[in-house]
Amino acid sequence: MKSLLLNLNYVYAVLVTLFVTASLDAADPLPSWNETGTKRAIIGFVERVTDRQSSDYVKPEARIATFDNDGTLWSEQPYYFQIAFAFDRVKAMASKHPEWSKKQPFKGVLEGDLKAVMAGGKESLLKLIATTHSGMTSEEFEQEVTDWISKAKHPKTGRLYKEMVFQPMLELLTYLRANGFKTYIVSGGGIEFMRPWTEAVYGIPPEQVVGSRIKTQYEIRDGQPVIVSLPEVNFIDDKEGKPIGIHYHIGRRPIFAAGNSDGDWQMLQYTTIGRSPSFGLIVHHTDAEREWAYDRNSHIGQLDKALADAPQQGWTVIDMKKDWIRIYPEK
Amino acid sequence: MKSLLLNLNYVYAVLVTLFVTASLDAADPLPSWNETGTKRAIIGFVERVTDRQSSDYVKPEARIATFDNDGTLWSEQPYYFQIAFAFDRVKAMASKHPEWSKKQPFKGVLEGDLKAVMAGGKESLLKLIATTHSGMTSEEFEQEVTDWISKAKHPKTGRLYKEMVFQPMLELLTYLRANGFKTYIVSGGGIEFMRPWTEAVYGIPPEQVVGSRIKTQYEIRDGQPVIVSLPEVNFIDDKEGKPIGIHYHIGRRPIFAAGNSDGDWQMLQYTTIGRSPSFGLIVHHTDAEREWAYDRNSHIGQLDKALADAPQQGWTVIDMKKDWIRIYPEK
Repeated sequence: MKSLLLNLNYVYAVLVTLFVTASLDAADPLPSWNETGTKRAIIGFVERVTDRQSSDYVKPEARIATFDNDGTLWSEQPYYFQIAFAFDRVKAMASKHPEWSKKQPFKGVLEGDLKAVMAGGKESLLKLIATTHSGMTSEEFEQEVTDWISKAKHPKTGRLYKEMVFQPMLELLTYLRANGFKTYIVSGGGIEFMRPWTEAVYGIPPEQVVGSRIKTQYEIRDGQPVIVSLPEVNFIDDKEGKPIGIHYHIGRRPIFAAGNSDGDWQMLQYTTIGRSPSFGLIVHHTDAEREWAYDRNSHIGQLDKALADAPQQGWTVIDMKKDWIRIYPEK
Repeated sequence: MKSLLLNLNYVYAVLVTLFVTASLDAADPLPSWNETGTKRAIIGFVERVTDRQSSDYVKPEARIATFDNDGTLWSEQPYYFQIAFAFDRVKAMASKHPEWSKKQPFKGVLEGDLKAVMAGGKESLLKLIATTHSGMTSEEFEQEVTDWISKAKHPKTGRLYKEMVFQPMLELLTYLRANGFKTYIVSGGGIEFMRPWTEAVYGIPPEQVVGSRIKTQYEIRDGQPVIVSLPEVNFIDDKEGKPIGIHYHIGRRPIFAAGNSDGDWQMLQYTTIGRSPSFGLIVHHTDAEREWAYDRNSHIGQLDKALADAPQQGWTVIDMKKDWIRIYPEK
């Protein structure tokens, strides 16, 4: 019985290969990408690592691809979308915290005074995150995020935040998975903020999401075992935290990494330096009309060192304006 | 083309289901298990959660199964095998540390005086682990583990440590995976000590191994980006650490958990209390002849609270002596 099944498996694999190859030849796997060197570089890499005859062939289990989220898979302006979530949480929680009307950064959020909020810098944002993301069970928090992501809209575009994902990157994720890659998110954003929706939006399941996290503790509440979040940062998955997060969660080095800022510099290094085949990809925000244009001098998603290193390291830089036919999915 | 491929997929899925069902009926999926209530309970659970007609049906992506390692998937006497590895590392490193000949716990290890080592308690073992597991790049450590696991032998059985895995549990892992489960290790043991060999021995890839870990840092060494281990404990994946480790790594609750000691108590609670369908499994070491017999009073793998709770919580307890036809794989 076993050998019959194996044979059947083999026949099927051959058939699928034939069909998939045919369908890839026929249908463009990256239809939202212009026919530029960027697209050719991506496809060339994928074809080499999946070609058993190539010296660059990589076994499927080692085809690990890691993607930053903010600014790489979805937009991040005028501030990280998780900050918008935290602001909305502050407003929802304010009635139980009358002291917030006199206390920054909460006061600024409640009065819509972004400048006052930002004046406190990173410290102040971390405080907002810790306050609005803690004290709940993981299930309660998941519900809060799920509710928010299904209805919150971006102030400038009027789109749902989850509709501000990059259509070309969705196609890239699908294309990589169709070629045996395991796709991960490795983001400075909160792991618990992303996991409730990444599977539906990106096809990336919770166990393939790596992110920053706050401390948690195990408790029995009302007779039920739960994980409760505490108002203290536990791990920041940014800069040198990214290779460390990859190492803990995945335990293998990626062969493909994509980012858009200096927060991804170390992940790009870790993936590519001294390793062949490997692929480093940078989303350069160059399209002020359809999205935003920013790099070296931006307070969000600053892209300086990684952009300077790209030519020498052989990282491929996406010029959003030239390389992408469309930015967001059609509604 | 797509719809043809989908149809083909469907036809294939039906064929495979027919064949696999037939072959499972014909061939026993758990041949090293006696026909006891334990085996029936396991098979009954798996059949219910995979039967689309059952009210206990669980979608494949939610079929998460977590296994403790020491004492659950392989033996753990007379001390955790990772301790044996640390002892061997101390001996290998001793020539560069002349001070160890006068300093416990190193002195005890070098003189084979286990009692002196153990006199320092947990503290002393953690010190041994931190010292012998740090200062290296992750690749160097992986090589050390790979070399050791391929040749180190157990003092009592003369078997390679990796041959002291439980044959019935190997069959259980395979059986669960054949039924769409994703199998994870969630162990108090070191994550970096397990990952180099769990795929070959258990069929569990590195990204599905959760364990204790020491701190690491990202460095450029000789021009290469590396992860270097530091002599400091970062996370203990034991007791209440297990649900926390599961939550960080997997982000979903398991529906099946297996352990053998009170270190697994919280994981068993987290998996089963108030959740149906779910399955808690405990390996009770009752076979002094073929393996070891111990529970409430053991200094290793103490099984007290979890054993007492088992009847009330509906956890299934494996009586190793009665339930298992064989303990280890045939050499």
